[in-house]
Amino acid sequence: MIAKNILDRLSQKLGKENVVTEKEDLLVLGYDATPGLYHAPDIVVYPTSTEAVQSAVQIAREERLPITPRGSGSGLSGGSIPATGGMVLCLNRMNKILEIDEENLTVTAQAGVITLDLANAVLKKGLFYPPDPASQKISTIGGNVMEDAGGLRCLKYGVTGDYVMALKCVLPDGNVITTGGKSVKDVAGYSFKDLLISSEGTLAIITEVTFRLIPPPQTKQTMLAYFDAIETAGKAVSEIIAAKIIPSTMEIMDKTTINCVEDYVKIGLPRETAALLLIEVDGHPAVVKEDIAGVEKILKQVKATEIHIAANEEEALGLATARRMALSAMARVSPSTLMEDATVPRSYMAQTFAEIERLAKKYDLIVGTFGHAGDGNLHPTVLCDERDADQMKRAHAFFDDLYTKVLEWGGTVSGEHGIGIAKRDYLARQVGPGGVAVMKRIKKAFDPDGILNPGKIFFDDQES
Amino acid sequence: MIAKNILDRLSQKLGKENVVTEKEDLLVLGYDATPGLYHAPDIVVYPTSTEAVQSAVQIAREERLPITPRGSGSGLSGGSIPATGGMVLCLNRMNKILEIDEENLTVTAQAGVITLDLANAVLKKGLFYPPDPASQKISTIGGNVMEDAGGLRCLKYGVTGDYVMALKCVLPDGNVITTGGKSVKDVAGYSFKDLLISSEGTLAIITEVTFRLIPPPQTKQTMLAYFDAIETAGKAVSEIIAAKIIPSTMEIMDKTTINCVEDYVKIGLPRETAALLLIEVDGHPAVVKEDIAGVEKILKQVKATEIHIAANEEEALGLATARRMALSAMARVSPSTLMEDATVPRSYMAQTFAEIERLAKKYDLIVGTFGHAGDGNLHPTVLCDERDADQMKRAHAFFDDLYTKVLEWGGTVSGEHGIGIAKRDYLARQVGPGGVAVMKRIKKAFDPDGILNPGKIFFDDQES
Repeated sequence: MIAKNILDRLSQKLGKENVVTEKEDLLVLGYDATPGLYHAPDIVVYPTSTEAVQSAVQIAREERLPITPRGSGSGLSGGSIPATGGMVLCLNRMNKILEIDEENLTVTAQAGVITLDLANAVLKKGLFYPPDPASQKISTIGGNVMEDAGGLRCLKYGVTGDYVMALKCVLPDGNVITTGGKSVKDVAGYSFKDLLISSEGTLAIITEVTFRLIPPPQTKQTMLAYFDAIETAGKAVSEIIAAKIIPSTMEIMDKTTINCVEDYVKIGLPRETAALLLIEVDGHPAVVKEDIAGVEKILKQVKATEIHIAANEEEALGLATARRMALSAMARVSPSTLMEDATVPRSYMAQTFAEIERLAKKYDLIVGTFGHAGDGNLHPTVLCDERDADQMKRAHAFFDDLYTKVLEWGGTVSGEHGIGIAKRDYLARQVGPGGVAVMKRIKKAFDPDGILNPGKIFFDDQES
Repeated sequence: MIAKNILDRLSQKLGKENVVTEKEDLLVLGYDATPGLYHAPDIVVYPTSTEAVQSAVQIAREERLPITPRGSGSGLSGGSIPATGGMVLCLNRMNKILEIDEENLTVTAQAGVITLDLANAVLKKGLFYPPDPASQKISTIGGNVMEDAGGLRCLKYGVTGDYVMALKCVLPDGNVITTGGKSVKDVAGYSFKDLLISSEGTLAIITEVTFRLIPPPQTKQTMLAYFDAIETAGKAVSEIIAAKIIPSTMEIMDKTTINCVEDYVKIGLPRETAALLLIEVDGHPAVVKEDIAGVEKILKQVKATEIHIAANEEEALGLATARRMALSAMARVSPSTLMEDATVPRSYMAQTFAEIERLAKKYDLIVGTFGHAGDGNLHPTVLCDERDADQMKRAHAFFDDLYTKVLEWGGTVSGEHGIGIAKRDYLARQVGPGGVAVMKRIKKAFDPDGILNPGKIFFDDQES
């Protein structure tokens, strides 16, 4: 229960309509997109300006109220769940695109702008914002930066962080700083900007972002390839890269995923195929033509069972949308879905698929795997039921074993979803006690009182 | 004077031949490429392995000896000068390329490998390492990472930091950590790797680097354009970018620079021209052809006085080499050269040139300006004489005024040379006391005793 004087102060600074304490309103902001995690906040504020964020932080500081910043809550590691209660600071009402600078090829927008809205707005000016996380229709750019969100086009274009030029943010001490700018090169002092990217809202609250933009590709071509073994699809991916062809997209779906998606969208995906690759090539027409021919040649060499080139943009969009539906499609048929984002160096792709298959058998689980094959970034997803305690135990053992291998192979426990509260155990395994110690010291440097997103990324009680 | 017991311990751990205390040997390691700065170290060590670096750090810690890590000393902001004496830790003898991974498109090498050697080694395997700082023939990759070195190809390909996938380093507390890996995506915890890039050896000592590589461009084309006013050259740059053509290189030289370079290399540069642009376009032959045509059209529209397309690769290389010689060429004719690396958003290029001209007149100075026009990254260079106190005072006033404008325009006080000890005053002006405070807290998180590169980037006595 929030004391009346705190409420009054927040209402005065942020506007009454931007401060929420009704139980039913709080309820929905205790979730994000991570299954099995929930904690209700005590209060939710919706600042509409950087100054309002600053006021909220100052009041929360004085009242020792932990703050959990969030956007749309599409995160997949529990980063926006207020695990210790306190204040949820929701940036959704800061949703203005402030400037599209056609001379410097940049866009500046408030943190709560929806990713796809930003991409569409710059496209109207003939510019291209490449990052396209699967959740782009609902995710916000602030959340994207804080998680360093990936997407389907990372293989060629990189991740969200690769486009960040400047961040305006409120620090836990209440100060507002802008880091970076519109200069394409800047090495003045430590690169805050890059440290803040993927810091999951634990070091600062972003209120504005400036992204660099690029010219859009002149044309693109989409193709599907089917395989009778998932290892063959993995091999195709490696050989395409080894042939120095860099498609914008190389997405994989295994049989389980294909069937769930086909049940949902009914676009005629072949239910008996072991795996499919969705490949997109873009750029200059001459390059696209050569690359498509090069890809086709390799697919034939590795003996893809079928190769299908999209006849037009509509069909291509349909195929990409089908891939984006993968998680929803699985969630439709399974009471729970435990999705991970194991990422390995590309050369370990085939081994990773084999290991997933072996472990699924060992733990008697149904696992659908899809993801960004070109990036070595896979989403093995256990179809399970949270009410079945034994099955959940096996599911966790499955991931435990899988991550042991992934780390052995020089991979990472998170390619794009972050650590949040869901993967804190795994982080320590990856970076070691020395790594966690330095991270905790960085956290302390920004947030000595631990007011911002406490308990996220690493356990509060871990030694520093 | 270093105590004998320290010497003995270091010799035992690093090998006698890798520990140097003779005065004449120390002398040369008190300089880097920044004019007017010098301080002799008390001891120089040349570790040959990560373990040797670790030993040196541990001994230095125990003996409270400040450490200044360095590579070839080609830095331009005094970052590798041991300003407080103590130990210089020179990584030049760690110069092995450890692995070129053709499957994952990566190269792993020790920090002391020369930049151009690395680029040539991967090129032999048909792979491309784009960063090409002007000093690539002597600079080391460790230094490049620590300064986030730019180069001539940044416009299209980005800077050194954009290619770093993993860093092995020794922390000031003596721990060895590896941050990052060969996975192309990794968001597990804070991005140390990105914080270490451009940290100028103040947070950790890098011993190994893994870079990502890309397929080399199939072809390239080089052209020169001459202009009767430098602002016209600036306009050409803006219009080329606005036309969504991204050359790999767009380098500018003003009249002073052209004449110094022509005196030196004698390749027939036109001495009467106000400015020239060196433009390089690379990629697929069809793209190069279209881009060259597009660039030529714009150059004619803005009324370049002459456009010259290199007839062959040899001529192209000659032109690029002439540009790389700019600083040496000026240093040849002037007792001292004060070079800066002011960087502005591209749209402010023309204003920056005008301001440089205005201020050169105001302070009665000869200023040659060249640099990476496509990046908005200029190197105004005052030709001066250190022995002329009044002239030096005017030179510093010139840069003081210039940076005031650069910061007003949203630029940065360093695009690629770093802060070191030369530009500490400017840093505070750019990031403000709040920014400096957070940076000092980060420094403290990594190096609580301030043993590593003390006094670099910000003054030690600044309040945190």
